Amino acid sequence: MAAQPLLIAGDWRPAAELVASFRAENPATGEAIGAEFPVNGAADLEAALAAAVAVADELARTPPERIAAFLEAYAAGIERDAETLVALAHAETALPAETRLAKVELPRTSGQLRQAARAVRNFSWTQPVIDTAGGLRSHHAPLHKPVLVFGPNNFPFAFNAIAGSDFASAIAARNPVIAKAHPSHPATSERLAQLAHAALREAGLPAAAVQMLYQFDSALGLKLAGDPRLGAIGFTGSRAGGLALKAAADAAGVPAYVELSSVNPVFLLPGALAERGTALAQEFFSSCTMGSGQFCTNPGVVVVPRSDDGDAFVAAAVAHFGNAAAGVLFSRGVLEHLQRSVDTLRKAGADLLVGGAAAGPGHRYQPTLLQVDAAQFLRAPQALQTEAFGPVSLLVRANDAAQMAALAAAFEGNLTGTLYSAADGSDAAAWTAVADALRPRVGRLIGNRMPTGVAVSPAMNHGGPYPSTGHAGFTAVGMPAAIRRFTALHCYDHVPDAQLPPELRDHNPGGVARQIDGHWCVDDVDARGTTA
Amino acid sequence: MAAQPLLIAGDWRPAAELVASFRAENPATGEAIGAEFPVNGAADLEAALAAAVAVADELARTPPERIAAFLEAYAAGIERDAETLVALAHAETALPAETRLAKVELPRTSGQLRQAARAVRNFSWTQPVIDTAGGLRSHHAPLHKPVLVFGPNNFPFAFNAIAGSDFASAIAARNPVIAKAHPSHPATSERLAQLAHAALREAGLPAAAVQMLYQFDSALGLKLAGDPRLGAIGFTGSRAGGLALKAAADAAGVPAYVELSSVNPVFLLPGALAERGTALAQEFFSSCTMGSGQFCTNPGVVVVPRSDDGDAFVAAAVAHFGNAAAGVLFSRGVLEHLQRSVDTLRKAGADLLVGGAAAGPGHRYQPTLLQVDAAQFLRAPQALQTEAFGPVSLLVRANDAAQMAALAAAFEGNLTGTLYSAADGSDAAAWTAVADALRPRVGRLIGNRMPTGVAVSPAMNHGGPYPSTGHAGFTAVGMPAAIRRFTALHCYDHVPDAQLPPELRDHNPGGVARQIDGHWCVDDVDARGTTA
Repeated sequence: MAAQPLLIAGDWRPAAELVASFRAENPATGEAIGAEFPVNGAADLEAALAAAVAVADELARTPPERIAAFLEAYAAGIERDAETLVALAHAETALPAETRLAKVELPRTSGQLRQAARAVRNFSWTQPVIDTAGGLRSHHAPLHKPVLVFGPNNFPFAFNAIAGSDFASAIAARNPVIAKAHPSHPATSERLAQLAHAALREAGLPAAAVQMLYQFDSALGLKLAGDPRLGAIGFTGSRAGGLALKAAADAAGVPAYVELSSVNPVFLLPGALAERGTALAQEFFSSCTMGSGQFCTNPGVVVVPRSDDGDAFVAAAVAHFGNAAAGVLFSRGVLEHLQRSVDTLRKAGADLLVGGAAAGPGHRYQPTLLQVDAAQFLRAPQALQTEAFGPVSLLVRANDAAQMAALAAAFEGNLTGTLYSAADGSDAAAWTAVADALRPRVGRLIGNRMPTGVAVSPAMNHGGPYPSTGHAGFTAVGMPAAIRRFTALHCYDHVPDAQLPPELRDHNPGGVARQIDGHWCVDDVDARGTTA
Repeated sequence: MAAQPLLIAGDWRPAAELVASFRAENPATGEAIGAEFPVNGAADLEAALAAAVAVADELARTPPERIAAFLEAYAAGIERDAETLVALAHAETALPAETRLAKVELPRTSGQLRQAARAVRNFSWTQPVIDTAGGLRSHHAPLHKPVLVFGPNNFPFAFNAIAGSDFASAIAARNPVIAKAHPSHPATSERLAQLAHAALREAGLPAAAVQMLYQFDSALGLKLAGDPRLGAIGFTGSRAGGLALKAAADAAGVPAYVELSSVNPVFLLPGALAERGTALAQEFFSSCTMGSGQFCTNPGVVVVPRSDDGDAFVAAAVAHFGNAAAGVLFSRGVLEHLQRSVDTLRKAGADLLVGGAAAGPGHRYQPTLLQVDAAQFLRAPQALQTEAFGPVSLLVRANDAAQMAALAAAFEGNLTGTLYSAADGSDAAAWTAVADALRPRVGRLIGNRMPTGVAVSPAMNHGGPYPSTGHAGFTAVGMPAAIRRFTALHCYDHVPDAQLPPELRDHNPGGVARQIDGHWCVDDVDARGTTA
């Protein structure tokens, strides 16, 4: 049995122990495709960890300019290789090649790497704070330890363990990465790793800054996640998997940034429905079925007034869903999980309005709507918040704004919460009632648009209260905030200027924004007349 | 059996179930003093939690001005009551009344509350970020859940669960607090709670914003810490206690900010010793024995060259320690723990140079120095990093700068690391070698002064890598950074201006510093010409 090599310590090498091997599938047909990839044993995990640990100090001391050059070279390499990458990812994920992979996700990925490079160059992620009278200076600094990144199945580029936001964030903070690809798109991940490897050489970064592993047993994964030599973990995926990794990391004092499940409740206020209910049904349908609904921010629960307008919205949505072809899911596992989730929702009292069944060939599922009364939702809020990862949504029918607010207060932590309101201001009171209850339960509160758009912006929060993520204070998307996850706060107390990191010295030739004596500025320290 | 009342939901009430009661001790004599205080059962913990939960949303929506008014009224109340507070704290802790409690710790505590009030007024802790093109605005916001604070024994004011940095930080972010006093100074804590209670009324804050409990069984404490209704935990104390609470909180998705043990290594470089070894011995002695050495940042390990200058330093230090009176410790428990720690160090190969025994009356311990060879330290680095909480330090004798750097690399996470260097620059190379190894292992790197000074400054980091704290990215001291621990990141995506929190709206009448399209400024959004 032969299998593709691993990237460890700057070399592509065969697995030390080939526990097993696996191939990707074409989800649209269910057929195995591409090369055999290795399932690794303990020796390879240890080798990857040791290689990353060995290079951590060197990487932390690497000039930021070289880190930025790597990120930009990698972005350019991804763009040059777009045709190949899109073909690989399309074959392994069945995501639309043109509309999704080539036009949206790949540019997003290279753009994200370039945003990380900009944050590296302007030091914004370090947040320098200088207290001249106190002789104290602090900033956020590299961890001097590796970051272990687990990529999800649903973004083969933009959240890939070796190219996505966690990767870009960890490297921007000058930490080595151990990337664990998602096994549903190994060839895409391998291709990205080759490009990363080439960009490392081009930028003159240590070759061991990035390791690539494909698959290993979950017990080995937990052991790795709980190794105190790690600096942090980034994970995007299922709640069960993420919480197990978080528990292992927590026990070792390793911060785990896990992005888990979310049903992303959407509230259609009465005025919005009266004004544009038909358009909203179309907008909702598009958002919920795009990418076969396999988004962390998929609108999984939609609260709809029990009214004529509400009934019309539901009828229009049912028509859209019923007329649509079954969506291709990433794997049999995703399909089976989705079916179980739909079963759970039905057992908890939800009625099936349309869809609800798998379809062939490959791993397909019908666009599906379920419906439940608000009172029943409030009786079984846990079960009825089961995430159905796929083109599925639960409509919750509410009597009035007060019941909508009660529903909002029944949600556990979510990535997003959305309100649609009338342009004429007639929903203002309902907005306040619902938003007040929803705000503390979501990371991003959205007005009048579906939650599936996650812009890479400094003001984005792709995060939210537990259990949507492991920590409500951090975002997984958006530079420089996402970088801050993979940093340590370092203070210098009466340390001579020459011994300080560049962004904390008196002289500030790069114009880094710093908080000096309580004020943000780009000055030298002595230019403010505040030094001795 | 009668006992002092608890502060729950704005009322002073007797314990629902008086599991037991306890009294403070005068540590200088070992005699019980003051009133009986309650050991609480599950019902009181639940009542305190429920009261705090019930008021969380209201507090989160309270105008910041009123929060600031509370913090300032409380600071003023503490200052007006200084004489009584100092007398109580002195009786319960034996800390020097004038030099420590009245002149240093009490003003630090009121000053810290006022710094928190300033951060509330200028919104600096919220870090507003606005992306005008993307329609996205984010900031740090209240948790909308209570913060549980466990105070330590060693700062009856400045880290008191109901007056210290965790308290001020949690309230500044508009979160209710459940304060768990340290049982070694219950009357001090009660007095502070009375002042807090009065200040709440004066400022018109919800009466249930603050609860005060004194003592409960550790199993109940773990159950409370693991309650998902909590927003976060702040803890300062022993490693075993803190890690147990952190594990309970982690399992419930509750962020736990725990400040644990630290030995705060100090490196005396050769040039510094040659230049001013005698003065350094005095400086070290003062720092290590101040407050009987009961500081998180006590210099617990001092690395001294094996040289004539090093020998002279050691001899001078031994003379200082030998001539000093035994220091009073906070309790029998502290004394016993210290004796066990000294025994552990000796068993691991350290030689006793001076001190090493308990003394009476009360709970006293001799100022103590131990010494070990660097090679032995490197053979048993874990045992020889045992924190000896008290007037005790371990001198490690190193051959040269290379061995000093090897020692620096052997330390686990610490709050601080210190280097003393010569004024003439002759230690520059040694500084670089040692500091490079030490930097990633400490939160605060200090030049030429002892670690015991922890200024309340925006640039302070009173934190450090695990296991000195639970998360290397946060500080427990310094506004506004310490406040950020008790916040959630909230994003607004195309939310109408009128529905935004004040500091995210277009108009910025308060001159809040905000990052707008990548630049920090105090402008309105439209003044930048960047809105539609």
